[in-house]
Amino acid sequence: MPEKTWEIPPGMRDFLPGDAREKRALEDKWVELFTAWGYQEVLTPTVEYLPSLTVDSGDEIRDRLFQFFDHQGRILALRPEMTIPIARLVATRLTRWSLPLRLYYAANVFRYAEPQAGRQREIFQAGVEVIGAPGPVADAEIVALAVEALRQAGLTDFQISLGQIEVFNGLMEELPLAGEHKARVRQLVAKKDFVGLRELLAATGLPAAQADLLLHLPTLHGGPEVLTQAACLAVNQRAAAGLENLSQVYAALQAFGVEAFVALDLGVLRGFDYYTGVVFEGYTFGVGFPICGGGRYDRLLARMGYDCPATGFAIGLDRVLLALSRLRQPVAAPVADVLVGGVDLAQVIAIARELRAAGLVVETDLLGRDRAGLVAGATARGIKTVRFAAGAAGEMGAE
Amino acid sequence: MPEKTWEIPPGMRDFLPGDAREKRALEDKWVELFTAWGYQEVLTPTVEYLPSLTVDSGDEIRDRLFQFFDHQGRILALRPEMTIPIARLVATRLTRWSLPLRLYYAANVFRYAEPQAGRQREIFQAGVEVIGAPGPVADAEIVALAVEALRQAGLTDFQISLGQIEVFNGLMEELPLAGEHKARVRQLVAKKDFVGLRELLAATGLPAAQADLLLHLPTLHGGPEVLTQAACLAVNQRAAAGLENLSQVYAALQAFGVEAFVALDLGVLRGFDYYTGVVFEGYTFGVGFPICGGGRYDRLLARMGYDCPATGFAIGLDRVLLALSRLRQPVAAPVADVLVGGVDLAQVIAIARELRAAGLVVETDLLGRDRAGLVAGATARGIKTVRFAAGAAGEMGAE
Repeated sequence: MPEKTWEIPPGMRDFLPGDAREKRALEDKWVELFTAWGYQEVLTPTVEYLPSLTVDSGDEIRDRLFQFFDHQGRILALRPEMTIPIARLVATRLTRWSLPLRLYYAANVFRYAEPQAGRQREIFQAGVEVIGAPGPVADAEIVALAVEALRQAGLTDFQISLGQIEVFNGLMEELPLAGEHKARVRQLVAKKDFVGLRELLAATGLPAAQADLLLHLPTLHGGPEVLTQAACLAVNQRAAAGLENLSQVYAALQAFGVEAFVALDLGVLRGFDYYTGVVFEGYTFGVGFPICGGGRYDRLLARMGYDCPATGFAIGLDRVLLALSRLRQPVAAPVADVLVGGVDLAQVIAIARELRAAGLVVETDLLGRDRAGLVAGATARGIKTVRFAAGAAGEMGAE
Repeated sequence: MPEKTWEIPPGMRDFLPGDAREKRALEDKWVELFTAWGYQEVLTPTVEYLPSLTVDSGDEIRDRLFQFFDHQGRILALRPEMTIPIARLVATRLTRWSLPLRLYYAANVFRYAEPQAGRQREIFQAGVEVIGAPGPVADAEIVALAVEALRQAGLTDFQISLGQIEVFNGLMEELPLAGEHKARVRQLVAKKDFVGLRELLAATGLPAAQADLLLHLPTLHGGPEVLTQAACLAVNQRAAAGLENLSQVYAALQAFGVEAFVALDLGVLRGFDYYTGVVFEGYTFGVGFPICGGGRYDRLLARMGYDCPATGFAIGLDRVLLALSRLRQPVAAPVADVLVGGVDLAQVIAIARELRAAGLVVETDLLGRDRAGLVAGATARGIKTVRFAAGAAGEMGAE
């Protein structure tokens, strides 16, 4: 049968021994970090009913679902992200737990993207959600924890772009634009497509003063000076409250000591409809899409019957691994410490048990090899030590 | 919106904080065990093309797939088990690695079962595959490792039923039965349905001597005496070789010192077509279906172009957790060691950092509570220690 029969679908990947080891090591590191900060793990089903998975998720996600039917004709889908399922879990099962809840997850999500360089369809993520804490300190903790997670992964050269979606939303309220134009404006601002935005605004005949405010938005990028530069965007109560909140979150980030990793950026909008406050995305050198992202979503849980503010983020585990792979040599497959063989199986097993109890990784011979064969096998594999049980145990190096 | 909108599909489950913690702890334990025995982790995509996932899998699995189409009209499915995908990975990507290969995985698989008590549709498994070791010692290592994994999980009262599918296959070669009758015989033997088997054999008019051999098969269950009792089943070369191999594997199991957990059982057939030698299933008190299963599959890799013997097993992580839940109290959600709050955020963060560095799980206040509020919050949560940063740090118990 031709080998192409066994190809895997685009955007999916195999993890060979070295890859899988690296993935697990990074996940373990994040689990330890999230746990130390008081976060507790939860997990939801890979497959849920479509309506549960798409509450407030936005068109961009809805168009990229893996969907299918169950035997009763109900539409199922693979989860495209974890925030909505966790909100559902909290709203249906954890409403009597004392707040705030700090939750974390490590899970794979699925998005049917047209294949592009590096774009996966099965995406491994880790992330956290804080439920029941409305203030800016919770948002700052989330951003600080994302920074800490990226640093512990071994990244040094990365940046979190932090915006506030209410500034944009307030601005849009003032504009005499049709709904479809507003959606298009949103896309262009998110993509920082100035040329397209200028053309669209000209075509709609928007007054120059208002058009200039919008065109100004994506240029507001940098340190705390952006908060001053953005004062002109406080066109109404909503936009002004957004700016004030952003300034409070930034002050809290300074208390966390992570402001060096954060750039304010009023053009950050994110692709989910559920955000209601600060939003952020992390970028690093050599990876052309966000390695993490998150923000505040104060109305999502109410949609499921539990009115409760929330904030959180997700980090792309495979994207961070990709960024790391560009910084360093690939991780080799792990090699056992000792290969044990010999004529007496019970003795071989006793030696292996003893060495494993001492913390060593031990392979036992499965091919009935003699001493020379065992040494050759260990050499081929890079195993440094061979033990041969020939009635009386003997130890020797593999080379 | 009514709460039922947010129900999850049957056979799927949410892991609340205590559940998720228990699941991760068990997986970590098995990862440590498999690693110490020289196994290396691999991972394959959750979604693959249907033909890749069903090579030799057998009708029972094929009828229980979650299937859907990609945008090009190719049929995709959620993996129903891990042995076939790992065989594909080895046959397409690891053919130049020195043998034997010892691989492990921890992954979720999906089977569309009609909901029954405890039957999940998303199943969390861990397991191992040994590639390139044809002899009985490899099979014995697999069984011994399954026993060790169940013991380390905390189970004591379990049993591995060990059979050899070639004994049954040899027997069937001799029987003048039509194909559909053979398939039905196979199902009835696997289910130990004596009554149904007796009726079927009577209806086919099979000579009594031959019918008796088949009816004898499911009764052959117990210690090494079964090997003697089964001598009458050596009706041809194939069946005789199967019995001889089973006897060698049992001898190796004695060298591993795990024979007390193993019962020979010539009625074990397993639900996959790819098995070619010893097959086994593990059972424990209070769980009505196997908690682990595996066996030898020497022809599967050849189907994918790499002719290489193999053996392996899978353990149901959620089934073992279910068995453990019947033995002990449910695991409580984890509780932080310390809750830190106060008026000076930078000081709160500095205290939290210091305590985390000392290995403690620390939550910081996100609700701006005063000292009394903080103590009340910690009490509600079961957190034993509160630190309040009031300019000068003070420490106090929560009660």
